[in-house]
Parts: sequence; C-alpha cells; structure tokens
Amino acid sequence: MLNDLSQAELVATERDLANRLATLRRANLSLDLTRGKPSPEQLALSDQVELMTGNDFNTEDGTDARNYGGLSGITEARQLGSQLLGVDASNVIAGGNSSLTLMYQYLLHAWLNGATGPDTAWRHDSGQLKFLCVVPGYDRHFTITESLGFELINVGFTEEGPDMDQIEALVDNDPLIKGIWCVPKYSNPTGHVYSDSIVERMALLAKRAGANFRIMWDNAYAVHDLTSDPPPLLNLMTRCQTVGTEDSAILFASTSKVTRAGSGISFMAASTGNLTSFMRSLGVQTIGPDKINQLRHVRFLKDLGGINKLMQSHAEIVRPKFDRVIKHLHDGLSDTGVGTWTVPQGGYFISFESPPGLAGAIIQLAGEAGVKLTPAGATFPYGRDPNDSNIRLAPTFPTLAEIDQAMPVFVTAVTLAAVRQLLGMAITTP
Amino acid sequence: MLNDLSQAELVATERDLANRLATLRRANLSLDLTRGKPSPEQLALSDQVELMTGNDFNTEDGTDARNYGGLSGITEARQLGSQLLGVDASNVIAGGNSSLTLMYQYLLHAWLNGATGPDTAWRHDSGQLKFLCVVPGYDRHFTITESLGFELINVGFTEEGPDMDQIEALVDNDPLIKGIWCVPKYSNPTGHVYSDSIVERMALLAKRAGANFRIMWDNAYAVHDLTSDPPPLLNLMTRCQTVGTEDSAILFASTSKVTRAGSGISFMAASTGNLTSFMRSLGVQTIGPDKINQLRHVRFLKDLGGINKLMQSHAEIVRPKFDRVIKHLHDGLSDTGVGTWTVPQGGYFISFESPPGLAGAIIQLAGEAGVKLTPAGATFPYGRDPNDSNIRLAPTFPTLAEIDQAMPVFVTAVTLAAVRQLLGMAITTP
Repeated sequence: MLNDLSQAELVATERDLANRLATLRRANLSLDLTRGKPSPEQLALSDQVELMTGNDFNTEDGTDARNYGGLSGITEARQLGSQLLGVDASNVIAGGNSSLTLMYQYLLHAWLNGATGPDTAWRHDSGQLKFLCVVPGYDRHFTITESLGFELINVGFTEEGPDMDQIEALVDNDPLIKGIWCVPKYSNPTGHVYSDSIVERMALLAKRAGANFRIMWDNAYAVHDLTSDPPPLLNLMTRCQTVGTEDSAILFASTSKVTRAGSGISFMAASTGNLTSFMRSLGVQTIGPDKINQLRHVRFLKDLGGINKLMQSHAEIVRPKFDRVIKHLHDGLSDTGVGTWTVPQGGYFISFESPPGLAGAIIQLAGEAGVKLTPAGATFPYGRDPNDSNIRLAPTFPTLAEIDQAMPVFVTAVTLAAVRQLLGMAITTP
Repeated sequence: MLNDLSQAELVATERDLANRLATLRRANLSLDLTRGKPSPEQLALSDQVELMTGNDFNTEDGTDARNYGGLSGITEARQLGSQLLGVDASNVIAGGNSSLTLMYQYLLHAWLNGATGPDTAWRHDSGQLKFLCVVPGYDRHFTITESLGFELINVGFTEEGPDMDQIEALVDNDPLIKGIWCVPKYSNPTGHVYSDSIVERMALLAKRAGANFRIMWDNAYAVHDLTSDPPPLLNLMTRCQTVGTEDSAILFASTSKVTRAGSGISFMAASTGNLTSFMRSLGVQTIGPDKINQLRHVRFLKDLGGINKLMQSHAEIVRPKFDRVIKHLHDGLSDTGVGTWTVPQGGYFISFESPPGLAGAIIQLAGEAGVKLTPAGATFPYGRDPNDSNIRLAPTFPTLAEIDQAMPVFVTAVTLAAVRQLLGMAITTP
C-alpha cells in the first residue's frame, strides 16, 4: 500500500515510476482506449447483413421497401424491437441508423411541441428547465439536454443503481425538473444493472414529478452480456403500466453494437398517447426510415433468439479483453491501494475511480506516453467531474496485444500520479 | 369550347358527362395519381446497389464504414454530392436517407441555435417570424417552417420562375421574413426551371433581406431530365460567391429519386461559416450517417456521369407516362377550353390549373370514381389554395394502362365540374 510507505520510500518509488513511464514513452506508442467501438472482428460477425435482400425487397406485408412511406418502420422491424424492449409492437417504432437521433427528436418534440399536446410543451414553462443526469454517465445524452437549454443536475449511484432517495427529493421540490437520463443495464460507464427496487421506484417517479416528466430509458446494452448468467432487468414499461405512469417511460435500443455501429437500426417504445403525438412531429422531419436496411437486419437477426446467439459470439471476442484490462488493473494496482474499478457483467466500459483530483493528471501522463484516454470529465455534464476521479476505459476496440501495451502505461500513470500527490509534488508538467 | 355552348347544349352536356362518370364509377377503379413515387421498374434500375460492398467495407481513405464516426459523411460521397450540386466538396456534407431531414435540421439550427452563432438565432427576434413559399409548391417544405412557428407567405410564379418583384418588395419591407423555399429545377409541381435572371436576383436577395436570410434551395430534381437537351440552371452558390452572399444559400439534393426512395443518401451544401456552425448542432443529434449505405451508393453511381447515365434509363421509363397524361389532357380538354397544364421537361409532376373554385370539386368527383388525386390545396401553405384551382398530377408510379384508366376519369370530372359551374349547379353532392 502506498499509504504505508515512508517519505523516503515514496521518493524512491516516484523516481522508479517516472523512469518507467519515460521508458514507455520512448516506445512511441499510439494506442486508444477512448471510444466504445466494436472491433473489426465483432463487425465481421454481421457482414452477412449485406446479402439478406437478394432481389426480394418486399416486407412480410408486401410493401416494397425500396419506395417511400412507412414512418413507423416496417412491421417486422417493429416486432424485433418489441422483443428487444419487451413492449407491445404497436407501441414500438423502428427508426434510422441512430437511436441518439430518436432521443434528440423525442426531447425536441416534448420541449417544442409538447409530449402530449401543445399545452404540455416544456418551453412554455417559466423558469430554468432542468434534467437529471445519473453520473458518471453518457456524455452524448447530457449534451442533448444541454443543447435544448436544460440545466443539468448530477445525481449519484448506489450499489443498486441511481440514488433514488436523492432523485425523489429533487423532483419533490422542483417542478422544473422535466426528466432523467438512464442507461438501466450495464450503465455507461459504471456497468450498473438497475435492481428491481430501483426500476419500481423509477416507475413511480411520475407520481411525484407530474404527468409531464419523462424517463429517457436508453437500453443500449440490453443484450450485451459478457456472462452466461446475465443479471435480469425489470421491464420499466410493464411496471409503469401497472402503476399508471406509462406516459413517463420512453425506451430506446438499437442494433449499433449488435450488427454495425452507425449503420444499424434504432427502436423507440412509448405509450400510445406519447407515440401518436411524437409521430406527428417526426412526420414533419422525414418521410420515413431506411426500410431496406430494416429488412436486411430483420432477415439477418430473425428474432430475439437470433440476437442472443449473435451476442454470444460478441461476448467470446469481448470478454477476454475485459478480463485482460481487469487483470492489468488488479496486478498493477491492488497492492498499491490506489483506485477502484468496476468488473462489469456486460456493456462496453470499465469505470475507473482514481483518488480525488487525479483523473485529469493521469489522462495527461498516459497521453504523453502514447495512450489516449477519454478526456477527464467526459462522463459528467458540462465535462466537469466534481471529484476529478472518473476515467472511462473502453476495452472492445483494441486487440489483446494493444491492451497489453496500453495498460502498463495506464497503471504506471495512475501510480505515479498517486505517489506524487502523496509527496505534494506537481503531478504533471504543463 | 364550353363557353360557346348554349344553355340547352350545356344541360345536355352535363347529362352526358354525369352519365359517363357514373359508368366509370361502376368500373370500381382504384387508382392513385397522388404521390411522386418512382415505379418498381425505376427502382429495379438500382437493385445492384445491394451488391456493391462485397466484403470490402473500407472507404477510399481506409475508414471502416461499419464502425462509428464521420459526421460529414464519407469523402467519396461528399465528392459525389459536390458534382451533383456544383459546390466544392469541402462545402458539402453527405447525410442519411432523407434530405428533408437535413432541411429540418438546418432550419431548426438557424431558429434554435443561430445559423452563424447564438446571436443570430431567429427565435430571439421579436415579432412573428415569416417564411416565403413559392406557390404552388411542396407541402412538406411548408410544413417544416409552419411547425417551427413561421407565418407562411405565398409568392407567385412568372414564366421564368418565382415572382422576384414581389419577393424583393416583401423582403424590403419586412425584416421578419427569414427565408424562402425554392425548388429551382423542375419545380414541384409546376416544372419551372428558374431562369438565369431569377437565380441572379436570388443571389442578390440577402443584400436586401439581411445577413440572416436563408434561401432553402432544394435541388431535388437536379438530374431528373426528361429530354436530351435539358434546360440549364445557373449555380446559385457560384452566383452568391460572386456577389458576396454565400451565407444565404443552403443547397440540398438526394438520391431518393435516383436509386431508392427513402433508402438513398442526402446532400447539403453551404458556406464554410454556415457548415461549421451547423455541424455543431448536427453533432448533438447523431454520431454520423449510415456510411455503409453511402459506400454502396458511391460504388454504384461512381460519379455525375454515372448518375446521368442512370437518369437516362429513368427517363425512358418515365417520359412515356408524362406524354400519355398530357395526351389525355390535350385530347380530352383542348376543345373545351377548360383548364391549363404544364408540359414539363423533367421532374415528377404535371401541374393542372382548373377554372377558379373547381379543384376541390374535381378531386371529389374523381375520387368517387376511384381515382385518388392529391388533396385540393396540398401544394399551398396551410393546405389552402386561394383560387381552389391547382391539382398536382404524379405520372411516375402508375403504369401506362393505369394512366389510360385514370385520366378519362380525371378529364370527365374536370369537364363536368366546369359545365356545372357554368350552369350554376351544385358541382358535387355532399
């Protein structure tokens, strides 16, 4: 444990680590642990998507997918989304290549036109609108609400998921809080899977927050399990229907990390009232999604069984990379007492917590040695991590060999930063 | 000429026409002349798009099109758009499956965030914002600006294109007019190709209307010629650059009516200042367009030469249909003196002008006989045709045989409505 070292031992350790990092720097590495991107091996699992149409472009109901029309997506794509999200197909739409776009369009709709009619448009509220962000979380979520003029409010995690006590207290006291961002399964980046009790309390939130409150439930990693016995996630929509709050739940998923990243299809599920109103706004912006790509996808994936089988092949590629990153963290840091990290059962990230005040410095040190890490604060609204401690590691894209090159740099940077902090030294050179 | 008939002759003609329509009605037709959709034969011209990737998903610069990234589209798609729009590739982005979506996103950006910075956001203007609509025009354009709260102002056509005297007078007197919708080549539905002088005056418009005025230049039919010697269209961007108004020109095109309707790729061209600002807004909404579909398209179309060759094949399918509709109009109506119609050199529509006050009635009569026509007023803001005279005919989707069934119904409905109007009779039964 670093804390047990004497001043002299710390000075010697600092020198050793600085030398080690200097040696690593001379290797002229150029490695990247920043983005949650699938690797080429994963992408190749779905190259057959390309061959699915042949010369048959007709959907199951005989629609020519090559022509205009069909704002909600083709029936069989909606059915696939229905299985993925566990919501009746009549309450699911299949969209274009980006669920992020559907999220933006939904929030724009609720702000500009009103989720359930012009009277409900958030922009007509007087006062500063606010949105809850569970942190650390997904920067692109936060940016959407920031761009629409919302003040973003950080809420923390407990072991079981978002801190519901904090969330309930916030919405009880502020009607200008209009919604909350959630990644309920393998939360980006912490890997949390919300417990049954969290989902149950989420479903009840609109009873406190009001009928115009929206839970943006981005189930981006719904099927992205790394273990054979994945943790279950309670169905938010079902719970909301039980307690009469189904208008508060807006669910999203996509195939971006199932088939092709940015060339897949997206899904949104919502109550009939929400969906009917949203479709009017959506119809102003487009004639419809790319139905041919939906057809390719449904014919390739077939159903939830097909998706799960494909995801097992993903897991076989991805799991060893997660294990390797975690092994480096364990081997390099366990004895130092520096930092904590998640051991997720799925998703795309490992979340690392350094001692407070060190994340930015660690990222700089690693960057100088050729290992690019997600910018400090990126997992927080406004890019500001109040503790400067969270670092998001993305193991999927690099090869195992690259992980073996990059992680010693990371571990060395973490330890060096911690030693320098204990010594009261400047941690980085500007 | 109907006008030359005596009262008794008109009464007899009315009876003949009513009988004829009743006979046609008994045929239980179900025909549709409403939508500007390509026919299956046209769509089949591009079925090879599907085979273009093989197992090579790398763009020319080595980007893996299957993975995330690339907000502006792949380089070779931007180059294709550059050729199509006649604008330097650095000022062109390649988007998703819908240029309408790009138009919405651009106008939302200018309204919400400001075309060239927060100070320029239209929504901060005090007073009712307005947008000019050249009529008859494209309903989906008008709906976008209506949904963003603009008051829509009709402006008419001259032989050469939009009535520039009227437009200039309007913008001279009203700083709340923020822009104008234009379809400069084979205007939807009138078929106008803007003359050089019109384009030159458009390029100068921002000198009168101010730096925050935008021309939404939807060149949807840029390559959709029906003749071997198509009329030229002056390049708006080039003209704007010459006179220093390049920030006022926002150009759009797509391959929806080149390859697949709703599964093609879209393009937008704008000044560097406009584009830099717009990309920040776009980056909030999406990680990027479907690059695989862009790759398919570029490999299939290759370049503007490839597009033009494909468009000749389209013309061979489409031209006979336009000719047939026009022959029916000529044969059925020339002797009556009722109505006028366009003989377009390209595009997707024939625009029919009935005597004032009859369009709605004609559409109802034809509908009762099984021929669906575009709803009266659809080509005008708010669905209100002030003269109730414009009917948009879309010849591309039906077969020649279907046109031969539908057009006698239309011609009969037109003549019957005109005769009844002359007789002062009720034209339709409610």
